[in-house]
Amino acid sequence: MDVNLINPFIEATLHVLSSLAFTQAKAGKPYLKKDQMARGDVSGIVGLSGEARGTLSVSFSERSILSIVSNMFGEPVHEINDEVKDAVGEILNIVSGQARQKLESMGRSLKGAIPTVITGKNHTISHITKQPIIAIPFDTDNGHFTIEVCIEEKSQPG
Amino acid sequence: MDVNLINPFIEATLHVLSSLAFTQAKAGKPYLKKDQMARGDVSGIVGLSGEARGTLSVSFSERSILSIVSNMFGEPVHEINDEVKDAVGEILNIVSGQARQKLESMGRSLKGAIPTVITGKNHTISHITKQPIIAIPFDTDNGHFTIEVCIEEKSQPG
Repeated sequence: MDVNLINPFIEATLHVLSSLAFTQAKAGKPYLKKDQMARGDVSGIVGLSGEARGTLSVSFSERSILSIVSNMFGEPVHEINDEVKDAVGEILNIVSGQARQKLESMGRSLKGAIPTVITGKNHTISHITKQPIIAIPFDTDNGHFTIEVCIEEKSQPG
Repeated sequence: MDVNLINPFIEATLHVLSSLAFTQAKAGKPYLKKDQMARGDVSGIVGLSGEARGTLSVSFSERSILSIVSNMFGEPVHEINDEVKDAVGEILNIVSGQARQKLESMGRSLKGAIPTVITGKNHTISHITKQPIIAIPFDTDNGHFTIEVCIEEKSQPG
């Protein structure tokens, strides 16, 4: 996929975490996923479709998401509960919405599906596509998280 | 959501498992999800979008998916490996494709995103939507699995 399509997702992530959760995240170097598997304790996934198929996922360590939602809520959160899941869904919706708005201005029109949030210690996530998946590692003062993006080059059957 | 939209997913699931995996599954009574959470050991998720946002997920117990893929491959499979994940993605793609074809003939046009497969003992899945989610339990001779479908009534922002 065109690597220029990645920046809108990085920018949206940094912006959302900074404005919603007062969290200054630092984006690491994007890399091409080889084993097609991310690990996390809480993940959000949103499918993209339209002129092409795509997917966006963000996988948080428990430590990083508890710190982020504690900042969002203004009080300490100690466990992955329903409010945390809703917050992950909200973060994902905003990142997806802002990124897709920028992609639209770059001539790529994609719609977002209903987001899904997964919890489970050290679960794995595999996007089932033959096309390259770009992973972007992020660091915060309280742990790490990873975003994965794939937008297929053109509309695939299915 | 319109419950008539559920049947195409049930029929496609029964058909795919029967033809690909020689597995006669039995669909239980669909129910409205209240707690918005499914559990499984291996799940596949595919986002739907177009005239409305949607999502389709299928969550297998380890026992049921190992039996299904053993039938598909024609040899016993003892652990959740990459081939199992690919098989779940394939099952999901075909169910989604067949169901969307029927929905199209009912005047509902939806596109599928890139599917994602999650593994992790007893992980939970929550679809982040305010609209009803329909769950359909399935039984096989070797364990159970659950499908969840939500198609929002009309296009939502985001």
